[in-house]
Amino acid sequence: MSDSHESVLFPADHLREFSTSVFRRCGIPEADAILAADVLAKSDLRGIDSHGVARLRSYYEMLDSGRINPRPNIRIVRERGSIATVDGDNGLGLVVGPKANGIAMDKAERHGSGWVSVCNSNHFGIAGYYPLQALERDLIGWAMSNSTKLVAPLWGAERMLGTNPIAIAFPGHEEPAIVIDMATSAVAYGKIEIALRAKTPVPRGWIIDKNGRDTTDPRDMIRGGAQLPLGSERALGGHKGYCLGAMADILCGVLSGANWGPFAPPFALRQEMPGRSVGKGIGHFFGAMQIDGFIDRDEFKKRIDEWIRVLRDTRPVPGTEGPLIPGDPEREAEAVRRRQGIPLLKPVVDDLMDVAKKAGIPFEMPAAGRR
Amino acid sequence: MSDSHESVLFPADHLREFSTSVFRRCGIPEADAILAADVLAKSDLRGIDSHGVARLRSYYEMLDSGRINPRPNIRIVRERGSIATVDGDNGLGLVVGPKANGIAMDKAERHGSGWVSVCNSNHFGIAGYYPLQALERDLIGWAMSNSTKLVAPLWGAERMLGTNPIAIAFPGHEEPAIVIDMATSAVAYGKIEIALRAKTPVPRGWIIDKNGRDTTDPRDMIRGGAQLPLGSERALGGHKGYCLGAMADILCGVLSGANWGPFAPPFALRQEMPGRSVGKGIGHFFGAMQIDGFIDRDEFKKRIDEWIRVLRDTRPVPGTEGPLIPGDPEREAEAVRRRQGIPLLKPVVDDLMDVAKKAGIPFEMPAAGRR
Repeated sequence: MSDSHESVLFPADHLREFSTSVFRRCGIPEADAILAADVLAKSDLRGIDSHGVARLRSYYEMLDSGRINPRPNIRIVRERGSIATVDGDNGLGLVVGPKANGIAMDKAERHGSGWVSVCNSNHFGIAGYYPLQALERDLIGWAMSNSTKLVAPLWGAERMLGTNPIAIAFPGHEEPAIVIDMATSAVAYGKIEIALRAKTPVPRGWIIDKNGRDTTDPRDMIRGGAQLPLGSERALGGHKGYCLGAMADILCGVLSGANWGPFAPPFALRQEMPGRSVGKGIGHFFGAMQIDGFIDRDEFKKRIDEWIRVLRDTRPVPGTEGPLIPGDPEREAEAVRRRQGIPLLKPVVDDLMDVAKKAGIPFEMPAAGRR
Repeated sequence: MSDSHESVLFPADHLREFSTSVFRRCGIPEADAILAADVLAKSDLRGIDSHGVARLRSYYEMLDSGRINPRPNIRIVRERGSIATVDGDNGLGLVVGPKANGIAMDKAERHGSGWVSVCNSNHFGIAGYYPLQALERDLIGWAMSNSTKLVAPLWGAERMLGTNPIAIAFPGHEEPAIVIDMATSAVAYGKIEIALRAKTPVPRGWIIDKNGRDTTDPRDMIRGGAQLPLGSERALGGHKGYCLGAMADILCGVLSGANWGPFAPPFALRQEMPGRSVGKGIGHFFGAMQIDGFIDRDEFKKRIDEWIRVLRDTRPVPGTEGPLIPGDPEREAEAVRRRQGIPLLKPVVDDLMDVAKKAGIPFEMPAAGRR
């Protein structure tokens, strides 16, 4: 997410080409490098800064140190009709994810729906990328992933689950698609990082300290604390956020043969490896469904249009402009950023400079664009 | 949920037989009456008092007044491989639900997975009943439903969505199954009813008043207020609970051709009908997946056991006994209630007496059991 700090605007294509070159230089085949860069670019365009080129350095280091396989043999290891498990062969999640999602979509076109559990993968970027791919094929797409532990289960005093996102999208006819993409924690980790940098307290309900106690000091998170699940506390449904995180962890990790819960390996080199391995890499779960198998496709899209219009017409809470439709903020960010460019903070630019130097690839600052 | 008020203990089978007789008397065929009574009994056994025989009177009135069809022709109206839409012919949700879920499970056994969207149905009881059915066939089952409007979308000042539950279950080997069954609102409506009866305030984050303002007075809910989605407010992820409620509403209502959002008809006779109809009845969405198509079935169950044990070993928050596993409270309630019976509050007993009188079916108080 954006910060109030000064940033420099980069054309999206400039960043996309740079990422592609970096991935290629790491030994990733051309088509895969383009694919991985597209996942990062989509995140930056949609305003999810934490999952875009801001992570390129982590991916580069993991590839450069041999922790990620640049030329994976991504394959179906088990399959029955509409379902399958895919082994990502420790490839970049940005490549394994789109390919496994492609298998789910192919299955949907053949069997009405397709469901693919993935093991032996790495961080796959924004979960929302995958249902957006499905929209291009007129399918309803789902995606989930597990990830490095950050979140405590309700009544737990330590990190046991990742922020395990869930995404799903539904196409409209005249209205833009409804795109849901949400972590199952109360808040994205990036928001805690922003408070750390700004030295401001965080709302009660975001984190606990290393003893499991409520705190508003973001430093308690990096001192061994944990994030809280969506719902935060028992009275507000914290057990429900924990249930959702557990569901994603089981479908992605337990079902595929990947690591699960506290054993999910980290996405960056500097992060500590779990003391134990219970499977291969991290896991994802993709689903795709043919609309036409349920209802006439155009009728569905017109019904979605009507749903959107009715929800937009909800009487607003005083002081707000009323409810948003899921996907509104990201779509609006994309419209602005396609025109103006992607704002990158200085630490991100410094990281990219460093990657450029190590990989021996030029990274040029834009001619203008400081904002 | 239970109350602190005095209650009378009824053997579960006693209530099950009474419900069966009532449904039979309403013209429901024998097998369907048994099925519907089983859904209610399961809810009472699992401690979800709000969805068990406490609702029998509402179902009876809806049947008696002709608002629900006792002999529906439940049929697949559209289908493609692993997916289908089922029209419940305005039958009792407690009959339409299990049958549509059965179609999803049959499809799963044939195509690896099965997904059934349902229109023209009515309230289907606890969502958790359906994944429990799937466990009996060694499948991973999902269920969702939409329902009468009670919840405001984040930043909305009026009811637009139901409490739209999501349920999923995963079998263990030696450990009991993980059973997730959660409304997408911050809290179950029943908890607000309890506060109303007890004349106690509710926590901030449960409801808003008719002007969309935060309130802790439960009377504001019945004076035109609304429940808040899981996450309650923007800072704590209230948009995420809204997204989950929207997802369930679209999969159940929009996709099936049922009513959606504020147009979902109510489950009881005394509740006001929406001013507009945008489809048929309310909607459900069922899914089932073959474990064996993803991973060896026994291996999966042993991995689930390990997941449960690791999560149970989480260091506890001071003052708690540590995290529960989803489904723990309901399973523990079932163990007690199978032995001791189902505690019914006086107003519920009075309702059942009234139904007994109107339907001309004896309802006997247990010989002992006042607690």
